Amino acid sequence: MKRTLIANLNENEESRISGWAIKIRNTKYMYFIMLKDRTGIIQVSVDKENNKDICEKLEGILADSIIEFTGKMQLSEYVKQGGKEFIPTSINIISSSQASPLEENANIDTRLNYRWIDLRSEKNNLMLKVQSKLVESMKNYLCENDFTEIHTPKLLGAASESGSDVFEVKYFDRSAYLAQSPQFYKQMAIASGLERVFEVGPAFRAENSNTNRHATEFTSFDIEFAYIDSYEDVMDLEEDLIIYSLTKIKETYGDKIKELFNEDIIIPKKPFPRIKLNDLYNELHNRYNYEIPTEDVGDMNAQTEKLTYQFAKEVYNSEFIFVTDFSKTKRAFYHMRENDTPLGYDLIWKGTEITTGAQREHRYDVLKKQCDEKGLGKDVEFYLQFFKYGCPAHGGFAIGIDRFIMLLLNIPSVKEEMFIFRGPNRLTP
Amino acid sequence: MKRTLIANLNENEESRISGWAIKIRNTKYMYFIMLKDRTGIIQVSVDKENNKDICEKLEGILADSIIEFTGKMQLSEYVKQGGKEFIPTSINIISSSQASPLEENANIDTRLNYRWIDLRSEKNNLMLKVQSKLVESMKNYLCENDFTEIHTPKLLGAASESGSDVFEVKYFDRSAYLAQSPQFYKQMAIASGLERVFEVGPAFRAENSNTNRHATEFTSFDIEFAYIDSYEDVMDLEEDLIIYSLTKIKETYGDKIKELFNEDIIIPKKPFPRIKLNDLYNELHNRYNYEIPTEDVGDMNAQTEKLTYQFAKEVYNSEFIFVTDFSKTKRAFYHMRENDTPLGYDLIWKGTEITTGAQREHRYDVLKKQCDEKGLGKDVEFYLQFFKYGCPAHGGFAIGIDRFIMLLLNIPSVKEEMFIFRGPNRLTP
Repeated sequence: MKRTLIANLNENEESRISGWAIKIRNTKYMYFIMLKDRTGIIQVSVDKENNKDICEKLEGILADSIIEFTGKMQLSEYVKQGGKEFIPTSINIISSSQASPLEENANIDTRLNYRWIDLRSEKNNLMLKVQSKLVESMKNYLCENDFTEIHTPKLLGAASESGSDVFEVKYFDRSAYLAQSPQFYKQMAIASGLERVFEVGPAFRAENSNTNRHATEFTSFDIEFAYIDSYEDVMDLEEDLIIYSLTKIKETYGDKIKELFNEDIIIPKKPFPRIKLNDLYNELHNRYNYEIPTEDVGDMNAQTEKLTYQFAKEVYNSEFIFVTDFSKTKRAFYHMRENDTPLGYDLIWKGTEITTGAQREHRYDVLKKQCDEKGLGKDVEFYLQFFKYGCPAHGGFAIGIDRFIMLLLNIPSVKEEMFIFRGPNRLTP
Repeated sequence: MKRTLIANLNENEESRISGWAIKIRNTKYMYFIMLKDRTGIIQVSVDKENNKDICEKLEGILADSIIEFTGKMQLSEYVKQGGKEFIPTSINIISSSQASPLEENANIDTRLNYRWIDLRSEKNNLMLKVQSKLVESMKNYLCENDFTEIHTPKLLGAASESGSDVFEVKYFDRSAYLAQSPQFYKQMAIASGLERVFEVGPAFRAENSNTNRHATEFTSFDIEFAYIDSYEDVMDLEEDLIIYSLTKIKETYGDKIKELFNEDIIIPKKPFPRIKLNDLYNELHNRYNYEIPTEDVGDMNAQTEKLTYQFAKEVYNSEFIFVTDFSKTKRAFYHMRENDTPLGYDLIWKGTEITTGAQREHRYDVLKKQCDEKGLGKDVEFYLQFFKYGCPAHGGFAIGIDRFIMLLLNIPSVKEEMFIFRGPNRLTP
């Protein structure tokens, strides 16, 4: 007999169900087992008098075990769980759990030690499904719009971009380095004649810092596309992509997110508000008496991001806001510039930067100059070659999907959001 | 004016087009430029007499440059390329190419040095799009069937699975190791209550070997799902997935693949033939007088795989064949066994193994015994924990997408198939 999913059980139909025994209650006359599969939960009621065999097998079985039952679903007005119960005629213990080492109020470190048990909660399972839906929706949107998915190498011959914060790998008799981002290679794809590309993959940062939003390894959703006229095109695409994905997430999981996380999914409207950094400084000064510290002038810091959210909510009633016109000293050398100002932006959502996007400099001579100006040498030489033999104007951005879901569901830390967190002191499980 | 894609040009409508100048022909009275974008190619015809400005800008411009024109498309019986030409009134050189360093018959190593130029060919662009379509189709199929996409860590605290062929990473004041596969973590996802998961991501193998189908980094499409009754369920899913994806590829790119690669996409029928390894040995012996070398008994080697394809074609008229009942000494410790025989399979396609799949051992005690028997110790201890606190029966498989496309398009080597190849002697570009 094939397994029937709990949500698909028909009354009085001989069926086989299997799932997690999330609760086992042993009373004088009855066993009550709350059995859970991916579609729902049902109470399995075992009358001890008439089911000696089943009871024998249930002896000593703890919650979290995997159990399979055959029998019939019946309607019952006494059962809280949807008025349905399952009356089994046979049992098969698929996997017998030891006593769970994870107590209910365990701290985050203990929870991470037993991450697979921690993730079993309805909330955490939902979190992973929402992340999967985010990626699925973004991909579908892009594929429908002529984008090609690529897979760029994570093992590099040179320490790319900056040289600092790069992990070194023993590569036969030499060294390799782990990619901090697919930036250079998604641009190479543009130089390869693919007009529009994206990639979802790991990025590695050897930062010895412990914040609620940094990890040494995270999943980056990277987008790059050609024949743009300005970085406005990049912001436009990002708006469309976010609106599309949030709509899909809301359709599929909106109610469940409200129930378990008490969060409303707010679908933003196009266009998101856009403001220049200097104008933003003025607004924050006039409204909140905030002065950006000298060392951060030309950029944003955590405090600026928080106030920017407040500003966006108050003035535009928007959770999202684009900030443009950063200082070239604070931006990567490959951002195209106009009058010495980088043609890029940060997207702030709920007080946190979720994207840096830009038009890229595709003209070899200009790019070389901007590269030299930042004092970057041999490590980016291979990258500069991509622009010598024809390359269209292009731009792009990246979204860290863990940070995105963390903000969407108001989860306090990426440690709790990522499937498995990696930090300077955490390489397990 | 917005850019118009070449395929969407309307006759006599003022338009802006931009793309790659794949050929520039300078004749006495005319310039002819073959301009290519992602939708097609058009001849841009410039009458020198009446377009001094345009001609000045075209002076010295080489093929592979990116050019933008405004003007009008006209029908012309003299033009071979679809009977259409573009008559420009203005020009903008977006990117001026230097003389290409890549000659037409360059060897594979030189081609890899200039991979972004090499990839520009229509054939290579198609190859990357077919790969993208494969991944897109497989994902869509799985998402529609309740699978969750996960992203597992590539930085591990222990050298997983075997300990050999693992890249070591300098991780602050200790060592980390690059994941050879997401095997352990996709199984952790099953123990986390996600019933059906998949992942597309890089896998790393420190093998110092140079064959046409090995790379030190490649993209693995991994699938794992729970509540299976047998590894037959795993084979069933793989059949469905392959049939679905090949159908999508054929619908979208079948004609183009025939034209550029001269390959027919053959959609297999369910079920694929299935044969036990010992029966296969007998067949190969009787039909081709082939004897498996002693050291390979219980397994397949390259020669066996080739003959197995011949056998599958001759007897079943099938490009695909499942081989089961390998020796436990040749299979991973985590394959479930029955009567000491692993409950798994290899899928052979066109003479090459493209998948190893199996039901996994989910019972802690049995798994621990199989692990000890292989002499695996501390490195897999963290993994064994996943099975102590309840875990459903499950199984899965992995497909290397590069190898899959290599076989589909009959490309001689993964070096030519991968976006960027990584081997013992190759870390660039």
